[in-house]
Amino acid sequence: MELWVLGTSAGRPILGRNVTSVALQMPQNRGTFWMIDCGEGTQHQLLRTPFRLSRLEKLFITHLHGDHVFGLAGLLSSRSSLGGTEPIALYGPPGLRELIETTLRITETHLGFALRIYEVGEGVVFEDDAFSVEAAKLDHRIISFGYRITERPRTGALNVKLLGEIGVPSGPLYGKLKAGEDITLEDGRIIRSLDVVSSPIPGRVIVVLGDTKPCNSAVELAKGADLLLHEATFSHHLADKAGEYGHSTAVQAAETASAAGVKRLLITHFSTRYKDEDLEALEEEAKTVFLASDIALELKPYKISR
Amino acid sequence: MELWVLGTSAGRPILGRNVTSVALQMPQNRGTFWMIDCGEGTQHQLLRTPFRLSRLEKLFITHLHGDHVFGLAGLLSSRSSLGGTEPIALYGPPGLRELIETTLRITETHLGFALRIYEVGEGVVFEDDAFSVEAAKLDHRIISFGYRITERPRTGALNVKLLGEIGVPSGPLYGKLKAGEDITLEDGRIIRSLDVVSSPIPGRVIVVLGDTKPCNSAVELAKGADLLLHEATFSHHLADKAGEYGHSTAVQAAETASAAGVKRLLITHFSTRYKDEDLEALEEEAKTVFLASDIALELKPYKISR
Repeated sequence: MELWVLGTSAGRPILGRNVTSVALQMPQNRGTFWMIDCGEGTQHQLLRTPFRLSRLEKLFITHLHGDHVFGLAGLLSSRSSLGGTEPIALYGPPGLRELIETTLRITETHLGFALRIYEVGEGVVFEDDAFSVEAAKLDHRIISFGYRITERPRTGALNVKLLGEIGVPSGPLYGKLKAGEDITLEDGRIIRSLDVVSSPIPGRVIVVLGDTKPCNSAVELAKGADLLLHEATFSHHLADKAGEYGHSTAVQAAETASAAGVKRLLITHFSTRYKDEDLEALEEEAKTVFLASDIALELKPYKISR
Repeated sequence: MELWVLGTSAGRPILGRNVTSVALQMPQNRGTFWMIDCGEGTQHQLLRTPFRLSRLEKLFITHLHGDHVFGLAGLLSSRSSLGGTEPIALYGPPGLRELIETTLRITETHLGFALRIYEVGEGVVFEDDAFSVEAAKLDHRIISFGYRITERPRTGALNVKLLGEIGVPSGPLYGKLKAGEDITLEDGRIIRSLDVVSSPIPGRVIVVLGDTKPCNSAVELAKGADLLLHEATFSHHLADKAGEYGHSTAVQAAETASAAGVKRLLITHFSTRYKDEDLEALEEEAKTVFLASDIALELKPYKISR
């Protein structure tokens, strides 16, 4: 799994920094990618990545401010014109349905795929055999969610060498053992799954937050995550301004990361007042509180591992 | 006056070509610019021009397909956050008001300036002392307008040398003469405005069309224009496809230019099937019918002169 930050600018784009969107390459066997947020120009950014819109499976919207959603209609429309036919599931706060349906209706945009819109509240918003996604309300000027994407533990690996030594023929028996079943060989020997399959591989956890002030729910949602993507609109000497506008400073993002005990923090959503060369100072600021902090770089893949 | 084509791609952006928008630098004394259409990423393109959003005065929408309007809300929002306070007038087909008002409401985008939305029909949609703008319905799958922007003739120049020889003192008398008034000097001589002011300078005419099949109203609207910007989605051997989707070929755009007797044709809105290196062939195709044809290049100023 890889996370790509497609935009790191708060509010509006500037040269070299686009507004918010994140793409998440899902495990190979799933063959898809997910997205979180979709500011204007997100589809333009995707053109500069290996992602193909036809492979987009799910899109989660943290909140309905324009710099997180104005690219949505264009992205859906382009996916259709590029021949995407698989359904898309779109999750986000109430109001998302009216926004999208009104826009598609008035612009006579006819999608060549099913668009399933889920206006969500707190709690589990999606789950299947491999992943679950939980939403939590943060503290912003408008309803703003964080999303915790949790991979379920994956089955451990078969000890093929040992099976060969014991004399278990490869084939359906391997599948049974991997699925946790014990088997009986023709000669009467019983082979226990536990003895030939390694322990389950823990799933990865990625937490992406919408705009927010520091709050307990952010800490709770991010607990033990492998990667936390947190806004850091301002430097800490603008903490008053951050509070007034419902945003965080780099220090506050790091404090949340530290309290949640995450493995790694990426900060993003930088005020347009900061030039690229100022961002290093924001990173330094975060590192004083939480060492495993980095500023998010656009269009660079971040590998997610346990 | 200068016309900048901000996007030349039909339907969706590709690397190096954005979707439709045009910026028109108005005469210096007006101190503003106008725009026609606003596809997604238009505000990003403006960052690469000398235009400042605070100076945007009017915005005309040809039709409500997404590749012509999905950048509108983001552009308005950014103009506000950049401190633009002067009102903006927005003209376009019915539906434009609901689209914009719904979007701004749901995303809680509060503009720091007055946005005046005019849903227009055919005829004169704006006029003042210096300009008039006329809309005409074209032939597309959805209501699509062309706009004819006409500069009123400007007062001729004072013959300052002659006035010096006659002995007219500079000052208020010059103003009266320039305004077309005859004056009487203290010694009783009558000076006629006509004798000391050159003939009025004809105004410039720019015609920008929305998506359209060839049609009479396009020819009528473009009559004698100094510059016609016309879509040419396809090459002429895809004329059937062009007709089916309500678009024009390069040859058809040139035929309209020729029938209207315009001075210069720029073609734009190229299907994404054409790579940059294919566009020269579209230009050649247009030139076989109308020699003063060029493909529009993005982010290049085209000077408009009589």
